Amino acid sequence: MRVLITGGAGFLGSHVASYFADNGHEVTVFDQNPVDGNFKTIIGDLTKATDVAAAVKGNDTVVHIGAIGDVYLAGEQPALASAVNVVGSANIAEAALEQGCRVVYASTWEVYGEPEYQPMDEKHPTNPDHPYNITKLAGERILMAASELRGLPVVALRLGTAFGSGLRPNSVFRIFIDRAKAGEPITVQGGGTQGRQFTHARDISRAFLMAAESGISGGVYNTTAPEVTSIKELAELVVSRFPTELTFGPARAGDVPAASVSAVKIEEELGWKAEVPFEEGLDELIATLE
Amino acid sequence: MRVLITGGAGFLGSHVASYFADNGHEVTVFDQNPVDGNFKTIIGDLTKATDVAAAVKGNDTVVHIGAIGDVYLAGEQPALASAVNVVGSANIAEAALEQGCRVVYASTWEVYGEPEYQPMDEKHPTNPDHPYNITKLAGERILMAASELRGLPVVALRLGTAFGSGLRPNSVFRIFIDRAKAGEPITVQGGGTQGRQFTHARDISRAFLMAAESGISGGVYNTTAPEVTSIKELAELVVSRFPTELTFGPARAGDVPAASVSAVKIEEELGWKAEVPFEEGLDELIATLE
Repeated sequence: MRVLITGGAGFLGSHVASYFADNGHEVTVFDQNPVDGNFKTIIGDLTKATDVAAAVKGNDTVVHIGAIGDVYLAGEQPALASAVNVVGSANIAEAALEQGCRVVYASTWEVYGEPEYQPMDEKHPTNPDHPYNITKLAGERILMAASELRGLPVVALRLGTAFGSGLRPNSVFRIFIDRAKAGEPITVQGGGTQGRQFTHARDISRAFLMAAESGISGGVYNTTAPEVTSIKELAELVVSRFPTELTFGPARAGDVPAASVSAVKIEEELGWKAEVPFEEGLDELIATLE
Repeated sequence: MRVLITGGAGFLGSHVASYFADNGHEVTVFDQNPVDGNFKTIIGDLTKATDVAAAVKGNDTVVHIGAIGDVYLAGEQPALASAVNVVGSANIAEAALEQGCRVVYASTWEVYGEPEYQPMDEKHPTNPDHPYNITKLAGERILMAASELRGLPVVALRLGTAFGSGLRPNSVFRIFIDRAKAGEPITVQGGGTQGRQFTHARDISRAFLMAAESGISGGVYNTTAPEVTSIKELAELVVSRFPTELTFGPARAGDVPAASVSAVKIEEELGWKAEVPFEEGLDELIATLE
């Protein structure tokens, strides 16, 4: 397929771009930043309809990952997150309708908010409470409305917290590893009992390809690894590899409470399940930081 | 109070502006269009943070009604609806935080989507499915997040379908009345059994003032009249006043199914309930079109 990967210069996008290319697809990256790699790259702004339309032209699939994906930046600049994550998704929908493209959207498990039952399946109510997950859900819904009302083929993947090589320096993984390697103390915020279904970027990339190749339209799928790892456990795993002091601090605004998410639907309907064990992914990440 | 009313040149905004002024408050209108009346008016664009900040300055309250409120326009231009309704609300939140303002937001009962139980109270899951209600909910959530995470005083009113003088020519009221008066047939879309809790602009204006004067922060309130009137009943009421032929056509995309909404919470917590009987409001509207 000829696939445009928005945000393809970012952490997750670059994994997905490589995965599609490795599987024989013709990849174009759309990003605000230049990308390292062998991909055709279009530099542009998701909030500009003309940039998006020009980038989508000539493709048959759009994997829409481009977003303000840094939760702290989204919290500081909600208008920017709204523009990129909502207006940007609306621009993608229009361009894809115009070109007859299929869209696979990178949504997030964080759309659910406070759990009403667990594990949370796709029918769980959505109560996002932070500019990041609010705008990611609105982007998902704008695309789903284009699917339902105007026939755009769309699949949305509500991703677990992604990890792998190339993570941002302000991710909890990088903060813990970088500090521990430097012999500095690691601070776990808010007690660290909040669990995360950390999902490896390679597993997520495979889910995007399966969704892109499926004939499904209008589907929303939790795309999470089954293992739940608390932040405290992550810290302990890092400290077991790079011994240093472990301390505990207050919770940060925007931190999402513990919750477990069911990925039964995507296994049943797309045949996807996570394959990378958490500790293996962690060691692989650490190896890339040597 | 010194109150900025966004969208104050529109149908609902102009009712609210007059109501606040009649109750002794110092009203400034912020709109893309000039407003008829005696209000100080600032012409500007909600999507431009500098326009919004300049307009909010000097006020202690913002009543944020400005939006792409025309559901059909929002359906045709989701990116525009996303920009005005979501980015615009984020800009209002930032400016209000900067100025120490209270915000009262015009949300909509349409955020609920398909009913899971009825009457729907504020705890009912939100499943908006059209660019209009998707972006209105995202704007509400962006403001609520500014309340919860950053202390902005916000009340959101999930309004019933508003009616009163000055309705847009493409509203169902105006279409029915204008056609019937001209002796043309009235067409009811989708069988016409979908019920609406039409809520008079004067009642809604009073709710905005009560919310603005309350000390409540972070509250979301259904603001709906109790009477449920189907589109078919509305058509029959119009035909009883201006006899003409009544026919039935297919449903339109984006039309929201019948649902009843509970306004118990706003009565208990703010002391508001609708006072204008539907037929009285309808006759008043007809009188303004003579």
